[in-house]
Amino acid sequence: MPNPTAAMLVIGDEILSGRTRDANMYFLAGELTKQGITLAEVRVVGDESDDIISAVRALSKRYDTVFTSGGIGPTHDDITADCIAAAFDRHIDVRDDARALLAAHYENTGSELNEARLRMARIPDGAGLIENPVSVAPGFTVDNVHVMAGVPSVFQAMVASVLPNLTGGAPLLSQSLRIDHGEGDIAGPLAALARKYDDLSIGSYPFQKNGAYGSNIVIRGTDGSRIDAAMTQLAGMFP
Amino acid sequence: MPNPTAAMLVIGDEILSGRTRDANMYFLAGELTKQGITLAEVRVVGDESDDIISAVRALSKRYDTVFTSGGIGPTHDDITADCIAAAFDRHIDVRDDARALLAAHYENTGSELNEARLRMARIPDGAGLIENPVSVAPGFTVDNVHVMAGVPSVFQAMVASVLPNLTGGAPLLSQSLRIDHGEGDIAGPLAALARKYDDLSIGSYPFQKNGAYGSNIVIRGTDGSRIDAAMTQLAGMFP
Repeated sequence: MPNPTAAMLVIGDEILSGRTRDANMYFLAGELTKQGITLAEVRVVGDESDDIISAVRALSKRYDTVFTSGGIGPTHDDITADCIAAAFDRHIDVRDDARALLAAHYENTGSELNEARLRMARIPDGAGLIENPVSVAPGFTVDNVHVMAGVPSVFQAMVASVLPNLTGGAPLLSQSLRIDHGEGDIAGPLAALARKYDDLSIGSYPFQKNGAYGSNIVIRGTDGSRIDAAMTQLAGMFP
Repeated sequence: MPNPTAAMLVIGDEILSGRTRDANMYFLAGELTKQGITLAEVRVVGDESDDIISAVRALSKRYDTVFTSGGIGPTHDDITADCIAAAFDRHIDVRDDARALLAAHYENTGSELNEARLRMARIPDGAGLIENPVSVAPGFTVDNVHVMAGVPSVFQAMVASVLPNLTGGAPLLSQSLRIDHGEGDIAGPLAALARKYDDLSIGSYPFQKNGAYGSNIVIRGTDGSRIDAAMTQLAGMFP
């Protein structure tokens, strides 16, 4: 059976304007691979309701699981929760369980649970809450979409809350070999190897170092013994 | 008149598996912002023909310009050129102008222009070539889609070749101010400011440092005097 699939939706003008370099995609990609879930697509959109809603609908329909990052804070540009509700035609308002989490937290820290902070307790009807051990304000899950914060430390903590509840497949294993020949020299034999081991994914990632060309060949798959066999043959090709 | 729009399509299994951290999106985002072109969407897909073709069609239709990165090398997993041809119903084969570039280069370097390397001269009919001062094998432009390499040094050189030919808009200017209050405390006044300056984009990017909460407020727009005015008012709000 093929591994379950996932998509990620990164939400935020700051990524698209080049102000912020996204760190969450790389983190999530690595975590999903370890868990045996295939990250099949990522989209990045700005803080625009229509764009967020249509991306959520498209990805939710096509993939087993969707992860979003960004746009669930207390400020006016945080519109993700309302967009998720709209995407699934759910009602959204401040919910008692989320409000209770925030109330306890702000009582402890001596801050006021004002109108802006209460925005973070707006949760679509029927959604499950995602624990946020870093800054308390929860993420949430609607249908197959997990809605999480953009701040990397919070995003990572929320991923850790969600992942154990997902059904993974066989973890994707990989081995790599550095070959000190240009891609143009190795491409022919490599294509033959890829045809022979068509249950594996064989990728070539070229580099140039001190004027010399080379490539890192990465062989990926779920069957370690097949990867071993292909790797042995590859090593013999370019001694 | 609103600024022209752009999208980016990142192609490669290595990004989605978490093996490689993409660097090209962040670079392109910054370059386009300087040029007054709004990067409105990014998608990342794997080395799958159907996914590449449908993403190229969707993005090309919706945005003024599309940039792709990845998948134009000589190995079997480099399928981007064929997918672009398919997306635009163009014929593709080795083209004389591209072959001549490669032939001269490999004659100089003493390498053979073999079948694999010739794959890099496969260019869709009617496409313009994009100069590659780093490793010669060209990118190309079909319709409004610029097809470029994934290796960051080559990608950046190709972007430099393409950008001067694009019509930019007013460069997006921005100023930012660090405010040492939690987002929950500043969200109300900030929303009022955003309503007053609705021609500007006002974003709030929270951080936590040594246990204290704060936020960087970024005000973006194309009219510097309006940004100055909003920034002055912002600074007065949280002395």
